[in-house]
Amino acid sequence: MTEYSQILLDIVDGVATITLNRPDKMNAFTRVMMEEMISAFDRTDADDTVRAVIVTGQGTRAFCAGADLTPDHGGQAFSANETVETLSDSRVRDSGGQLTLRMFQSQKPVIGAINGAAVGVGATMQLPMDIRIASMTARFGFVFARRGIVPEAASSWFLPRIVGMPQALEWCMTGRVFDAQEALAGGLVRSLHEPEALMPAAIAIAREIADNTSAISITMTRAMLWRNSTLEHPMLAHRVDSRAIYTTARSADAQEGVASFLEKRAPRYPGRVSSDMPQFYPWWNEPGWE
Amino acid sequence: MTEYSQILLDIVDGVATITLNRPDKMNAFTRVMMEEMISAFDRTDADDTVRAVIVTGQGTRAFCAGADLTPDHGGQAFSANETVETLSDSRVRDSGGQLTLRMFQSQKPVIGAINGAAVGVGATMQLPMDIRIASMTARFGFVFARRGIVPEAASSWFLPRIVGMPQALEWCMTGRVFDAQEALAGGLVRSLHEPEALMPAAIAIAREIADNTSAISITMTRAMLWRNSTLEHPMLAHRVDSRAIYTTARSADAQEGVASFLEKRAPRYPGRVSSDMPQFYPWWNEPGWE
Amino acid sequence: MTEYSQILLDIVDGVATITLNRPDKMNAFTRVMMEEMISAFDRTDADDTVRAVIVTGQGTRAFCAGADLTPDHGGQAFSANETVETLSDSRVRDSGGQLTLRMFQSQKPVIGAINGAAVGVGATMQLPMDIRIASMTARFGFVFARRGIVPEAASSWFLPRIVGMPQALEWCMTGRVFDAQEALAGGLVRSLHEPEALMPAAIAIAREIADNTSAISITMTRAMLWRNSTLEHPMLAHRVDSRAIYTTARSADAQEGVASFLEKRAPRYPGRVSSDMPQFYPWWNEPGWE
Repeated sequence: MTEYSQILLDIVDGVATITLNRPDKMNAFTRVMMEEMISAFDRTDADDTVRAVIVTGQGTRAFCAGADLTPDHGGQAFSANETVETLSDSRVRDSGGQLTLRMFQSQKPVIGAINGAAVGVGATMQLPMDIRIASMTARFGFVFARRGIVPEAASSWFLPRIVGMPQALEWCMTGRVFDAQEALAGGLVRSLHEPEALMPAAIAIAREIADNTSAISITMTRAMLWRNSTLEHPMLAHRVDSRAIYTTARSADAQEGVASFLEKRAPRYPGRVSSDMPQFYPWWNEPGWE
Repeated sequence: MTEYSQILLDIVDGVATITLNRPDKMNAFTRVMMEEMISAFDRTDADDTVRAVIVTGQGTRAFCAGADLTPDHGGQAFSANETVETLSDSRVRDSGGQLTLRMFQSQKPVIGAINGAAVGVGATMQLPMDIRIASMTARFGFVFARRGIVPEAASSWFLPRIVGMPQALEWCMTGRVFDAQEALAGGLVRSLHEPEALMPAAIAIAREIADNTSAISITMTRAMLWRNSTLEHPMLAHRVDSRAIYTTARSADAQEGVASFLEKRAPRYPGRVSSDMPQFYPWWNEPGWE
Repeated sequence: MTEYSQILLDIVDGVATITLNRPDKMNAFTRVMMEEMISAFDRTDADDTVRAVIVTGQGTRAFCAGADLTPDHGGQAFSANETVETLSDSRVRDSGGQLTLRMFQSQKPVIGAINGAAVGVGATMQLPMDIRIASMTARFGFVFARRGIVPEAASSWFLPRIVGMPQALEWCMTGRVFDAQEALAGGLVRSLHEPEALMPAAIAIAREIADNTSAISITMTRAMLWRNSTLEHPMLAHRVDSRAIYTTARSADAQEGVASFLEKRAPRYPGRVSSDMPQFYPWWNEPGWE
């Protein structure tokens, strides 16, 4: 099923599941895990049959208990081999951020099924996901200030977008661990589930997307919502969506969308993300690592 | 009362009401409707007696059931006469966006009274309104991905600002139709009302604004909130509001505001939007269509 | 304890309390009060023993009833000595904004304990605080449009970030005064308390931060959340937090953070904000007054 060592990747019926798979280590994050997750997202993007990606953790204790602090796993989830003497700090990329930026670029929707403790990078890696649901037993912590470090993985950009500025400030400044009910009340997750009902709920969301929507529409929608919402003026979004509406409305997917709606039947969209995206996609200039 | 064919425009006691008026077509959106609505907003802006604009739909079934897909109404609410052969896609403006950008520029506050089904552009045209209330029987749907197209009308910019990123993503990615209770819980509308109580509630909000506030203050406030909130740093807002406070505090409206407050009586602000806006208004460079 | 005339500044056990101290005037805001508050924030920043700042008002009636409108207190909270004849409006800085921009730059977390009426600048000065709690008897009002003026103190930037765009629009456009329950429901404050329990609750939050977190982590976190969240792309946050994680993870505070966690004891972080911030801090170019 997969050649990975610290994650599992399963693809069933159009739904990919990435499982953090170090249950004896509470699925602690390592550089290898980062590389494998990025590779898995490369594969789900390249595979036209994949319509949604679920990310979860193995076991019932932890989703991901943070960065593996043992020396042979990359220390604090960044390159521990480097020292200030050998490498300018401006050239070391945080590994959590490499992963969240890759998720940000995912062409498929990402659903988090948070099955247990999610602390540190286990909490911040959830933020670029599109929908998060959790087990009632999950716990969360943006604990960085309690470890003498800082929120990473671009979470200072993502978290206020997800839960609003007051909640982001409070969770990050106290650094305390909080339970699933507080995560729900604070808007971090959409719903809570009994542990055994968590994956079925995640799959139901993935199925709702897969069974009803155009893959091309979803890839476009994902990029438009995440990217256009940060622009200074709605005209800048209008420039993008005018071209997008013009192009997609003339597509085979739109014909099928209208036909299936009028015929009250399930749609069978022919468009493929690998070959049929609008010609102007991607329309943005991606800022690189400096 | 009005020479329009697909909308009504009534102005009573300082409150303008724009009614989408194709009840036999569930008030489906057409190019003509767009042009008439833009014209109506031009008139409410130019008329100093208008202190607030309510937008609603005729009948009890629909606010607006989306773009009229029949060929004689402009197809998917964009210019259907053009083809990729005759016109570069970059030069076709989405008609929903033309409307929402016009509402964005409204000098008067806009209140949505969502009286029934609001789907597609019927949902996205609400987003630049300042306050939305709904009938308990209303339904909503950002259904684009279920039709093979994409969120339009600059909704990728507006929707995350209104309901937050997680809710925006979920509604757009599933594309499902949802009821008024979910719209309320998700922050899309401020309150729900029995169908017959909807317009009275909208008028009460309009009256609260009209009877208590300075028209110039409201026009300034509307532009400041929508425009300054997207800037990168609060200093950029401070540059605007410092000039605005300096100017308005020396105005006849400010004198009347303080006097009526101290005398515990209703204010009668003399300022007129057509002639008495601060000299530096508008202070921004509006991005144009490229 | 303090040489100020319109505020009090107390520092006890690492927690500074700034008290607006004109109870006979409902703590109305003056130019002197602004200058004293800015001076107090300069002192809390410079004092390494201060780990959090609480802002509250003297008495039980008012937190701050707005700008003092009497002539000897600077009129509408801006320079009243200037006239349009002697000074270009573009050169007059709103005094509320001078204060909120200073709070925005605070290196220490700011907690609002809103003990009573908070109207006008009494409402807007709360917005750059990190956590706000209120007395059940508090009232709030963004009343500017009812006085013929506009929202000041950069509140058009801050308020939508704190409570979302729909709530910001409604409070500013109606200009009405609302109670503590509505402030809680709207997300303006985090919790309500009996009057006598308000300061203990504020101190408990301050203590949670002071007793558990690294001062350097908190100063970094505060700047990162407020500043990175407005950037256009998460890569821009990743560039900052990669350097921040690289640097802080090698710090004495990080060693103590991990050691105290493993030893299950309270941490004693050695880092001092005055001398031990990462070398690249501050990493931003602060926009100045033009």
